Amino acid sequence: MLEVKTPEEVLRLIEKAFHPLGRIETVPLAEAPGRVLAEDIRAEEFVPDFDRSTVDGYALRAKDTFGCSDAVPAVLNLVGDVRMGEGAAFSVPRDSCAYVPTGAAIPAGCDCVVMIEYTEDYGDGTVGILRPGAPGMNLIFRGDDVHPGKTVLRSGRVLEAQDIGALAAIGKTEVPVCPRLRVGVISTGDELVPAGQKPGPGQVRDVNGPMISALLREFGAEPIDYGIVVDDEKLLREKTGTAAESCDAVILSGGTSAGVRDAACQIIGDLGELLLHGIAVKPGKPTILGRTGNRPLIGLPGHPVAAFFVVKLFALPLLARLDGRTMCSRPVHAALSESFSANHGRMQVSACSLEEKDGRLVATPVRSKSGLITQLAGADGYFVIDRDCEGLPKDAETEVYWH
Amino acid sequence: MLEVKTPEEVLRLIEKAFHPLGRIETVPLAEAPGRVLAEDIRAEEFVPDFDRSTVDGYALRAKDTFGCSDAVPAVLNLVGDVRMGEGAAFSVPRDSCAYVPTGAAIPAGCDCVVMIEYTEDYGDGTVGILRPGAPGMNLIFRGDDVHPGKTVLRSGRVLEAQDIGALAAIGKTEVPVCPRLRVGVISTGDELVPAGQKPGPGQVRDVNGPMISALLREFGAEPIDYGIVVDDEKLLREKTGTAAESCDAVILSGGTSAGVRDAACQIIGDLGELLLHGIAVKPGKPTILGRTGNRPLIGLPGHPVAAFFVVKLFALPLLARLDGRTMCSRPVHAALSESFSANHGRMQVSACSLEEKDGRLVATPVRSKSGLITQLAGADGYFVIDRDCEGLPKDAETEVYWH
Repeated sequence: MLEVKTPEEVLRLIEKAFHPLGRIETVPLAEAPGRVLAEDIRAEEFVPDFDRSTVDGYALRAKDTFGCSDAVPAVLNLVGDVRMGEGAAFSVPRDSCAYVPTGAAIPAGCDCVVMIEYTEDYGDGTVGILRPGAPGMNLIFRGDDVHPGKTVLRSGRVLEAQDIGALAAIGKTEVPVCPRLRVGVISTGDELVPAGQKPGPGQVRDVNGPMISALLREFGAEPIDYGIVVDDEKLLREKTGTAAESCDAVILSGGTSAGVRDAACQIIGDLGELLLHGIAVKPGKPTILGRTGNRPLIGLPGHPVAAFFVVKLFALPLLARLDGRTMCSRPVHAALSESFSANHGRMQVSACSLEEKDGRLVATPVRSKSGLITQLAGADGYFVIDRDCEGLPKDAETEVYWH
Repeated sequence: MLEVKTPEEVLRLIEKAFHPLGRIETVPLAEAPGRVLAEDIRAEEFVPDFDRSTVDGYALRAKDTFGCSDAVPAVLNLVGDVRMGEGAAFSVPRDSCAYVPTGAAIPAGCDCVVMIEYTEDYGDGTVGILRPGAPGMNLIFRGDDVHPGKTVLRSGRVLEAQDIGALAAIGKTEVPVCPRLRVGVISTGDELVPAGQKPGPGQVRDVNGPMISALLREFGAEPIDYGIVVDDEKLLREKTGTAAESCDAVILSGGTSAGVRDAACQIIGDLGELLLHGIAVKPGKPTILGRTGNRPLIGLPGHPVAAFFVVKLFALPLLARLDGRTMCSRPVHAALSESFSANHGRMQVSACSLEEKDGRLVATPVRSKSGLITQLAGADGYFVIDRDCEGLPKDAETEVYWH
């Protein structure tokens, strides 16, 4: 029998026992949001590819305007007009200027732009400049945003809208991403019926199957539903073997009775190697982890609340390891609305609601008997109490996680 | 000309000028994650529908075990064995017990379960109970999780995995949600080419189109791409009119030059009503908002960074108003890595990276010339400086938002 491990030990074990799959597929830019970048992205061009004005005004040489003012304008010859979307095909000689709209190219010979508000077009081919320019003023230089070779995004990042913008800017319309992980989901238990079926005496609907599939979808993996298996070692062994052959990972849940737990351990051990049986976390202790090669086989407790937290805390970090993903789950800070006691020696997790009161975020623990999933519904996040801690008093600041 | 409004005034204007569409469609449970619930969900049954054991053990009457101990066990007759997934078809008389696995139904006559660890099966049809039971011990009662009429989830919630679990528990396999908002996206500018095309002299790739579409997808709306329109009032008027006819909202971006901005104002005014021209926020000031009926027409600045923040701060809350969605963007707290100055009189937004240093979250502002989108790529969030504030010193605690 393997020892119960602490949450930190489990996360270290995950790092050691599994490695990134290193697979790559290419998707169009429009389908890239939410996907995991599989390679560093380097720019191959200058962005912008020309010096560009940031205002509507006159491009000119700063030194031709030194000392000018409302009272003594610098009078320059207007030699042209740059249109948006065209290059500046002419150059500007001394004591001259050219009109440029915001975003347009700056003609050769100019080193700044004076805003139109500080100028006066005399209508006779000359323009009065009422404020002196300075070199670089109101300009974006060629390559200010990106130059060839610059790393724009790092592999492992989950792509967000601003990243899509950057990829568009450098012309990357095909993006190398990690293929979605295919994760087999199996619910076990003689008492389970599918959610669409009315439970008979002693039966309950399968909550874990749909919930774990939803967690996987939110994460960006593809759940493969293997349905409900009754508590029969042979059937469970067959189903688990089938799932392991065609998926990148398999998540079993249920088997709440001791006999079935042992069967799951046995099956996982026989299919490959059992790595872990038991995590010092409440809820979630009877968790099993094994592998066949680099393919994780995860056995979750049957209680939905326990299954939920074990997926959040351990299964998703494990899947992130497989697709080389950078995980960053950042907590928000909130004051506890009431005291919360915990058992020394194991980490404890509780769902909570969040509410703003007097400009302060307040977390109210959701008190639930293990397994009562509807208590979790509508919760806003969860907080964790370390295993060295015996509880937190009312008003204690706690860190609340969700995503 | 309309006055520039403060961000608070804009959010109040959105509440006042637009109302929820109130449309409903039904989707299967597996497709419900991330969708906006369109109706309150009430349970119609008890969950569980029977009294249930939370442990493996013996169901019995507590009073038959009062005072028992290791030394003086209560000896009870074993009258049955409840199987998982079956009702308890028998009842348990006085001084008797029945074996129940975790999650199984409790036979009539019993009021608690004693864990198997505290019992001894003598093998002769009797069981020794070594610890006294207490009424309700190790039981979940019928309806403890849900009873008929209980509101399990409220309309407006964006459904997450735990909500999917609750819906499965009560047998809701068809979920009433708000149809995805269809949002037309139009980029304007003579200088723009599609991201897949190499820019010629004076041209740049369209960043806003793909980025705004990605923001809409992340939010759960359906972007409808109307492509790039050159700076021509007639063409822009036609395209905007077409988009407004078939979408729930239209977002224009670009038109950075003063003439085009005026054209956009004119077009929005002609199609319906101009509500707003200018928000006291940096970047993002030249934002336009109008409506035709309850359909918003939004004109964003052409600078990608400004467009990004205006979508996050104003366009998404507006879309949330249309689908009756509860928005909750909760900030994380971080210390500023360096001082950040701001202009009194307008709100200022800056992207930042987040890093953990010495157990503390540190936010480093991303310094960027307006429009430099690749600086935003890889950023972890943004913080906001109020318009009454002239800046923040190094180490000041700031609130960082992303989702």
